[in-house]
Amino acid sequence: MALPTEQTQVVLVARPAPAVTADLFAVRRAPVPRPGPGELLIQVLWLSIDPAMRGWIADAPNYRPPVPLNEVMFGFTVGRVVESNHPDYVPGELVYGTQGWQEYAVSDGSDIDHKVDPAWGSPSAALGVLGHTGLTAYLGLLDVGQPKEGETVLVTTAAGAVGSVVGQIARLKGCRTVGLAGSDEKVRLCREFYGFDAAINYRSAGDRLADLVAEACPDGVDIFFDNVSGPLAEAVFPLLNTRARVVQCGTIGIASDGSANGPRPGRTVLAKRIRWEGFLVLDHFDAFPRALADLGRWVADGRIRHREDVVEGLASAPDALCGMLAGRNLGKVVVKVARDTAKA
Amino acid sequence: MALPTEQTQVVLVARPAPAVTADLFAVRRAPVPRPGPGELLIQVLWLSIDPAMRGWIADAPNYRPPVPLNEVMFGFTVGRVVESNHPDYVPGELVYGTQGWQEYAVSDGSDIDHKVDPAWGSPSAALGVLGHTGLTAYLGLLDVGQPKEGETVLVTTAAGAVGSVVGQIARLKGCRTVGLAGSDEKVRLCREFYGFDAAINYRSAGDRLADLVAEACPDGVDIFFDNVSGPLAEAVFPLLNTRARVVQCGTIGIASDGSANGPRPGRTVLAKRIRWEGFLVLDHFDAFPRALADLGRWVADGRIRHREDVVEGLASAPDALCGMLAGRNLGKVVVKVARDTAKA
Repeated sequence: MALPTEQTQVVLVARPAPAVTADLFAVRRAPVPRPGPGELLIQVLWLSIDPAMRGWIADAPNYRPPVPLNEVMFGFTVGRVVESNHPDYVPGELVYGTQGWQEYAVSDGSDIDHKVDPAWGSPSAALGVLGHTGLTAYLGLLDVGQPKEGETVLVTTAAGAVGSVVGQIARLKGCRTVGLAGSDEKVRLCREFYGFDAAINYRSAGDRLADLVAEACPDGVDIFFDNVSGPLAEAVFPLLNTRARVVQCGTIGIASDGSANGPRPGRTVLAKRIRWEGFLVLDHFDAFPRALADLGRWVADGRIRHREDVVEGLASAPDALCGMLAGRNLGKVVVKVARDTAKA
Repeated sequence: MALPTEQTQVVLVARPAPAVTADLFAVRRAPVPRPGPGELLIQVLWLSIDPAMRGWIADAPNYRPPVPLNEVMFGFTVGRVVESNHPDYVPGELVYGTQGWQEYAVSDGSDIDHKVDPAWGSPSAALGVLGHTGLTAYLGLLDVGQPKEGETVLVTTAAGAVGSVVGQIARLKGCRTVGLAGSDEKVRLCREFYGFDAAINYRSAGDRLADLVAEACPDGVDIFFDNVSGPLAEAVFPLLNTRARVVQCGTIGIASDGSANGPRPGRTVLAKRIRWEGFLVLDHFDAFPRALADLGRWVADGRIRHREDVVEGLASAPDALCGMLAGRNLGKVVVKVARDTAKA
């Protein structure tokens, strides 16, 4: 197939104020770059849409510098190598990396994390249950949370790409699993599709949230796997047991402007010997092979189930992001950028 | 020596409101109890006065139930076995336990932690650097904080019984050590006696505290060993480095009424992947022998220095507690209850 000379890119043109809206992004045309010595050219096939993107585009303290204005939006991708002057890659291979919101990207290999095994089925799984969201769930729950059989694990955004896998792994480890989700439909998914022991709609719960959580966790909460923080986490902290672990994996419930909210645990951390730990999967590359071996097996034999919401076309990525931040998805949101011509 | 038939006890008669004052306690006379089968009688020689006592007497959530009103005040003690019907103890042995604020106590052994080795010098050291405060410093810093050479360790109540040992162990491990203390005299002690690299008087610092800490920690803070919480900790949290560890070992800066203050880290725990962990030495009995082996060696060879403020007489214990909570001590506060007649 002849390479096109031009491609579509989606660039960030404004910062959240504080809402994330589609007009923070613009679509532009740009030349398809050519790989130099030691480089390769990747055609992006799939983009991942993630809650963390809100943090990546805001001009607030974070674990990485914000995406610069007028540059291609940063994001996890699966692509196919189309040309290579790099000794480690040959055309036709699938790679998982951070090529971002564009159709073609040149890489020196440093923004590629690993090759995607075609045996995993749809390569888009590499952006979810067999990618950073599944890895976040696995490593955050098992390495940081260290669940023991019989403990109670409470998960926020429980129907989401991370939370749903946390709940399923916790169940495999013999824990009671309780999910918080933002709609009755998601609550049903948690119970019926992902197998949580209990699930609660935190939006309709209102002032009764703490009571409902206490009812669903009659023995208290041993592990709080939290993707939200903010007032939701404030309601949960008083229910933590002695020696509870809080895995802080996201803070989507905290305003982008960074204004202080979320738990202010005062004496609780000491009196209950809580361990409250921030977790970022990008710190744990070394553990990926071990985690993917387990996850791959569990997905293959059906012990871990997952769902995808597929959105078509790169230009739809901004709307897909806004929809996910508003909670309109029911599975991991991925954008299909191109048909995989190598397989067509 | 003939045993007396009556003894002095100090009992708790009121709860902090919220200040801890000497009139929360009363001195009373009571019979000297006699040990039954399987029990032993202990003469208390030394009492430990500890910041945690404020929590033990308050009617607020804590890691142990509050001391009941009209009962003997709970506390760590060193005593001598004077009679024994217990197979593990013989008269004359020194024991470290929680016999509390009284001259004589019967024990079934469950409130004795270990025998005190007379080779350690003054048995009062068993209440400090070779007891729960030294153990708190050792295990909290090394097991929870996990210092690495070249890191910066910031300690509150740095001239205190725990803080001073934390600073000295951190220095032995090759860390930069910075102390916060409540008077110029304590700051001098930190620098000149305990060998901190820098020390700051947080009381006179006022609004400049965060600036002074930042200046003393030019590479940020990797381990925050905190005995205080409250506004002091709020000033420190923004200076924490990525992957910093916060060892919450006390919360003396938080009002007894439990009203919420102290850090409310919002996104910081996640963005910097902080580990914030409550530490209570009573959870770690299994590690005591390992820790005491190191501490005993370091104290013996002068690598760890310690100071005691000795107060005479059981009836002085309430004043000693109030004085320590007001920061008037310059070393570990111990009350000498009796001359050790076995040695006299």
